[in-house]
Amino acid sequence: MYRSFTAPFTASGRSALVPPPPWHYAGWLINVAFTCDPAQGAQLLPPARGRLTGRGCVHFADWQACSDGGIELLDPVYAQYRETIVVLESETPSGERLNFCPFIYVDQDVSLLRGLLQGWPKKMGRTWLTRSLPLDHAAAAPLTAGTALGASLCVKDRRLLEARLVLTGEPGPALGFFAAPTLGAVGWPDLRDAQALPEPHFVRSRIDRRVEAGWHAATAQLTLTDHPVEELGLLGPLQTGDASVGWAALTVVGAADA
Amino acid sequence: MYRSFTAPFTASGRSALVPPPPWHYAGWLINVAFTCDPAQGAQLLPPARGRLTGRGCVHFADWQACSDGGIELLDPVYAQYRETIVVLESETPSGERLNFCPFIYVDQDVSLLRGLLQGWPKKMGRTWLTRSLPLDHAAAAPLTAGTALGASLCVKDRRLLEARLVLTGEPGPALGFFAAPTLGAVGWPDLRDAQALPEPHFVRSRIDRRVEAGWHAATAQLTLTDHPVEELGLLGPLQTGDASVGWAALTVVGAADA
Amino acid sequence: MYRSFTAPFTASGRSALVPPPPWHYAGWLINVAFTCDPAQGAQLLPPARGRLTGRGCVHFADWQACSDGGIELLDPVYAQYRETIVVLESETPSGERLNFCPFIYVDQDVSLLRGLLQGWPKKMGRTWLTRSLPLDHAAAAPLTAGTALGASLCVKDRRLLEARLVLTGEPGPALGFFAAPTLGAVGWPDLRDAQALPEPHFVRSRIDRRVEAGWHAATAQLTLTDHPVEELGLLGPLQTGDASVGWAALTVVGAADA
Amino acid sequence: MYRSFTAPFTASGRSALVPPPPWHYAGWLINVAFTCDPAQGAQLLPPARGRLTGRGCVHFADWQACSDGGIELLDPVYAQYRETIVVLESETPSGERLNFCPFIYVDQDVSLLRGLLQGWPKKMGRTWLTRSLPLDHAAAAPLTAGTALGASLCVKDRRLLEARLVLTGEPGPALGFFAAPTLGAVGWPDLRDAQALPEPHFVRSRIDRRVEAGWHAATAQLTLTDHPVEELGLLGPLQTGDASVGWAALTVVGAADA
Repeated sequence: MYRSFTAPFTASGRSALVPPPPWHYAGWLINVAFTCDPAQGAQLLPPARGRLTGRGCVHFADWQACSDGGIELLDPVYAQYRETIVVLESETPSGERLNFCPFIYVDQDVSLLRGLLQGWPKKMGRTWLTRSLPLDHAAAAPLTAGTALGASLCVKDRRLLEARLVLTGEPGPALGFFAAPTLGAVGWPDLRDAQALPEPHFVRSRIDRRVEAGWHAATAQLTLTDHPVEELGLLGPLQTGDASVGWAALTVVGAADA
Repeated sequence: MYRSFTAPFTASGRSALVPPPPWHYAGWLINVAFTCDPAQGAQLLPPARGRLTGRGCVHFADWQACSDGGIELLDPVYAQYRETIVVLESETPSGERLNFCPFIYVDQDVSLLRGLLQGWPKKMGRTWLTRSLPLDHAAAAPLTAGTALGASLCVKDRRLLEARLVLTGEPGPALGFFAAPTLGAVGWPDLRDAQALPEPHFVRSRIDRRVEAGWHAATAQLTLTDHPVEELGLLGPLQTGDASVGWAALTVVGAADA
Repeated sequence: MYRSFTAPFTASGRSALVPPPPWHYAGWLINVAFTCDPAQGAQLLPPARGRLTGRGCVHFADWQACSDGGIELLDPVYAQYRETIVVLESETPSGERLNFCPFIYVDQDVSLLRGLLQGWPKKMGRTWLTRSLPLDHAAAAPLTAGTALGASLCVKDRRLLEARLVLTGEPGPALGFFAAPTLGAVGWPDLRDAQALPEPHFVRSRIDRRVEAGWHAATAQLTLTDHPVEELGLLGPLQTGDASVGWAALTVVGAADA
Repeated sequence: MYRSFTAPFTASGRSALVPPPPWHYAGWLINVAFTCDPAQGAQLLPPARGRLTGRGCVHFADWQACSDGGIELLDPVYAQYRETIVVLESETPSGERLNFCPFIYVDQDVSLLRGLLQGWPKKMGRTWLTRSLPLDHAAAAPLTAGTALGASLCVKDRRLLEARLVLTGEPGPALGFFAAPTLGAVGWPDLRDAQALPEPHFVRSRIDRRVEAGWHAATAQLTLTDHPVEELGLLGPLQTGDASVGWAALTVVGAADA
């Protein structure tokens, strides 16, 4: 009788937190690649799924998302959110390169649950990132050599990640989840067996339509701060690598076993 | 290999959004009973689970919650949240009176996911409620006859529910989920079959330790406002009934099929 | 001994909420012109300052601001804010057309106080506005004919203003404070004479460098909702007029008596 | 013609951010005294106003405030806020002991401006503090020996102050601004002379009605973290002293020159 894709469950499904896919996303992103010590990878990815290569990326993203018809764009409190995404490159036993997202932080409920369904392990966090506006002005951070930008992530009132970038004026690389498919881990505990831990299954999102506006290269410095709860510290010291900024969009239509 | 109860999945489980139960909750509550038209009940509760009686309650709650050991009380951004809970009384086919929660709104991620696991259909919303302080002062709203209090719920920047109360100075009733067990509906869609809707299963929380400090009676006025997404309007016009305020605590240890 | 421009007062002035001008601003704006009944204008503007013409504009703005050197752009929680600005056109006794801002709502403290110093009567409110991204995608709201956008303002958990727009694909007009200078009212009560009301003085901002990226025309619908505290209702029913969207930047260097 | 105490200025004054005093405040407080190096006191307090003694207090406060009539208590988004208050003890040239507030952080606009008018140098920050509920339960933090509580302050997404306390079960001291009058510094720059710094005048609040519910002693540990903008670091290393928790209320009716 229910027509809700997620709770709350009603006959119309109108108030369900998340509607069924397709889900359309477009955003402004700051991407900072890093290398880290892969030795602790088994803390994050089951060996049967692959091994970490020691490469990864932080994406700071200012998204606008909607379902078919775009009704959320008319009431943008339903469409917009910011998030910080950490991805690690893994090599599967068969030799394929995949990204894996161990940690991700977002600021809207619809995105939190929509992410969990896709295997993105979302928690709430506050992300800020400088935007580039098409203006020649001191506050506009235009897409020209020498422009400085920043980004930050705060989780439970503690700053966890910061980045500072300077644009080089050159085209930049596609990084992180724009460079390779991403593996997600989906799992829900069942309170009827309250101490049993879930065994997540692994999926790959089915992506339909992907558009990039061209990446702009930057030099960057990424800073990770200790946190009493969050486990980004498992990555060890981060060596900042390539960086880029730009706009990109994609549509997710479902998922497949990975 | 993972020891996380919920995502993110790590070997330690330290950063999991929700730890396993027991979950201890203590709070200050404003409870307002109402009657409504049960005719649209089948929009909210499958007939096989029972029928609505036309009685319900709104709880505005200012909670403090922790796991065993109470570590969250040392860093209260992890312990405190406010929420608005709507419960409807149902009569099961076997004649038992149970509460059912069609809608609930909270302001912290840990509570959102912990609620979904228990069958509380939580979304994000902002709740405010006047507190009573043990002082004789114009701003303290003491627990004496004539004290006025208010409460409100806002969902996606629209005010959805408001209550105004005046204490009578008399003891008050246990209302809503303090008066009868509550039924929860748990269900998750699976993106590998992306258009399939979940069929929720129904559970009852296993509650271990429950403490109430004595309820204080109030007269009340409850106001519900139309909302383009939320479906509280399915309850039709609300007739405000009994009301009470006070402190209560309980511990959830798991769930059982209902 | 203090070198703070605003509180807190310290010898370095480093932690002052607002630094001295120049203040550089760049942003994305949705502008919706309206006509209203000017009869209640004397509730908002002293007759000696002029009379309302019955024309006005709502600006929904997503700003990025910085001081000289741009240090805020490296840590954008200090640079970015969203606000909703209402301006009314007035005709001064000498026949000059000036805008006057009766109400404005912002979401960051630095902008709140910086605004009050300029005579913008800022209070806190939450603004959302659809952004246009340079991508051809369902979630990108590109700057082409037929694209739909929305905006909203919420003050103390109540939605106060909403706008919906559809781009025409044509160039659009400069509206509101982009079309004429704006008058500000600055006044502070003094608690040493605690019941005395301040008599605000009127100023005009000194604007140094102004850049616009070209406005894009839209048709629009503006909706104003009653509020128990806010006084936008003094404008009476609003007739929506021209609308435009686009990027603009300016630098404020000080103010002059108006 | 205007009847607003603060902006916005309207004929009714209804929407003014701050109404005239009296202002009634009641709250739950965690108070932690400290000693620090007074050598840098001249960075914070003009020598003509006195010298720091090296004693101070941090108050974490969960307030409920209203004007005469208490209308804010019916719509508590207007009444409630949390703040963190730092006070330093000074000795005036004439030998009087006064508190002085160099830094204070709040989470609501009305409190921010109402504070600036009284000489409290308020900026926005997020405060959390464990509450004690009158229940014997693991999440209630009751007022008994051994109960642990915590508090935190975050400013612009960085945690600045933390406290952890354990109640002793004994009555506790009145600390900080509950132990001695407090000096405030009020000053506003004038943009018509845009580079001129204000010279604040010093006031003492006129307090009318003050109620305390009895303080409960605690042992405490206070931790201060470096911040790139905030200047609490001027206090040098903090040695935590006495601590107490409890409820208190007071009414402010105006201010006098100090």
